[in-house]
Amino acid sequence: MVSHATTVQVHWSDADPAGIAFYPRFFEWYDRGSEALFASVGLAWPELFPKYAIVGVPILESGSRFRSPARYGDTLTVHSTLAWVKDKTFRVEHRITRGNRLCAEGFEVRAWIPRPAPGADLATASIPPEVVARLTGGPA
Amino acid sequence: MVSHATTVQVHWSDADPAGIAFYPRFFEWYDRGSEALFASVGLAWPELFPKYAIVGVPILESGSRFRSPARYGDTLTVHSTLAWVKDKTFRVEHRITRGNRLCAEGFEVRAWIPRPAPGADLATASIPPEVVARLTGGPA
Amino acid sequence: MVSHATTVQVHWSDADPAGIAFYPRFFEWYDRGSEALFASVGLAWPELFPKYAIVGVPILESGSRFRSPARYGDTLTVHSTLAWVKDKTFRVEHRITRGNRLCAEGFEVRAWIPRPAPGADLATASIPPEVVARLTGGPA
Amino acid sequence: MVSHATTVQVHWSDADPAGIAFYPRFFEWYDRGSEALFASVGLAWPELFPKYAIVGVPILESGSRFRSPARYGDTLTVHSTLAWVKDKTFRVEHRITRGNRLCAEGFEVRAWIPRPAPGADLATASIPPEVVARLTGGPA
Repeated sequence: MVSHATTVQVHWSDADPAGIAFYPRFFEWYDRGSEALFASVGLAWPELFPKYAIVGVPILESGSRFRSPARYGDTLTVHSTLAWVKDKTFRVEHRITRGNRLCAEGFEVRAWIPRPAPGADLATASIPPEVVARLTGGPA
Repeated sequence: MVSHATTVQVHWSDADPAGIAFYPRFFEWYDRGSEALFASVGLAWPELFPKYAIVGVPILESGSRFRSPARYGDTLTVHSTLAWVKDKTFRVEHRITRGNRLCAEGFEVRAWIPRPAPGADLATASIPPEVVARLTGGPA
Repeated sequence: MVSHATTVQVHWSDADPAGIAFYPRFFEWYDRGSEALFASVGLAWPELFPKYAIVGVPILESGSRFRSPARYGDTLTVHSTLAWVKDKTFRVEHRITRGNRLCAEGFEVRAWIPRPAPGADLATASIPPEVVARLTGGPA
Repeated sequence: MVSHATTVQVHWSDADPAGIAFYPRFFEWYDRGSEALFASVGLAWPELFPKYAIVGVPILESGSRFRSPARYGDTLTVHSTLAWVKDKTFRVEHRITRGNRLCAEGFEVRAWIPRPAPGADLATASIPPEVVARLTGGPA
């Protein structure tokens, strides 16, 4: 299973009047972590989504525990690891740290969802084997 | 020319560590004001955009003067007035107030832009006469 | 235990290129739901936080399952219910619906955290009894 | 006068259902550009603001022309130049490009505003000479 670390900055607009990062931002950073994880194995989303005619890899479930605050000016590392890949879904686990301090840990379960026909509902589909291969660290 | 007033709340996530609203939020509120102005004359964007197969009414130019701060918990009024409509573009002027206090005044120049053919660039087109009629306060 | 329903609009800026709401927005709406729940029992955050000299009620844990997409133009209802209040923490459960359709369900565990002395770390404290009384539906 | 270039990515959450960046994001990138410009001359905001006990350098006026769209996945360069520094205010001009293509050009006029006494209004003050010296490219 592949893993990857990417860096995010806590910007002025990410911090609230208490001076600490607004908690939905952590989920934006998890999203950023998943995107960087894919890109690190040659599956950059801006090319992947149109290539496979998917709407993206929407979220089915997400959760997070928040251990210590992130503040304006902090440089954070998002450590993202693919936990599993099933037929139509996969799970990414994230840890966000500031230096040695753990700020948050969470996860995302996402699905492979093709662009629907006009008027049709969104529905999951099997993840193509070559995508699975890259995500599980095998040859492309 | 039509005008309309809509209300926005300054949420926790809109305010920065200084306790005042982050300035790009004012442009989000101007966008909200333009959307409400259109809806007030029967041109709700979620129906308008697909009906006319436009990508939307993207911005060509925008500007704002900031007169006094907006703070977490404030209820603001966005007063939006159509200043002019030309063949392919229009201008909306906005004033944001908190009670009698002026917080900001600004403007947006926007264009009517059809959904392009695949691979083609975005290009402006003439605003349909029935849309112009509604925006200028005439019968639909 | 108190509960409350509030309404949010899916704005243009909430929807992504797939036309569906970006998932961290749901957590912003949960935050909005908790804020509205407090306000509904006379505990509006903009007054509560300075009155008790707290930094706010920061998140310890949050999670969500996403059942069906929210799209640009949708009017959503955030149903928020206080699940429990302990000495220093409380849990709010949220359901977001569009008409009869369930879009997402989630929760937040939050803590009562006083403004620290300069240089001190954030630490939880006991929730004042009159706040507990209001949250649990008793007299203030 | 100093100038600086910084890089921003157009993230999934920055792009709207039309696939192009929501226009208030450009002002967030101008803000990012001003912050990077200050940091490039040894005036990183997370240290500068507490050091001088200012609420920040809030905006008095801002404006932008939008020349061509930015899209999900684009890497943009924000070129920021200090145009002038007066006693209490300064102006930064920004150009955002994608490769050789100009996406937007705009400006910000900002003020030096000390943290007010409790209950007092925000008011501008003279920019300290050593800050002016750095911004105008002289020795610190």
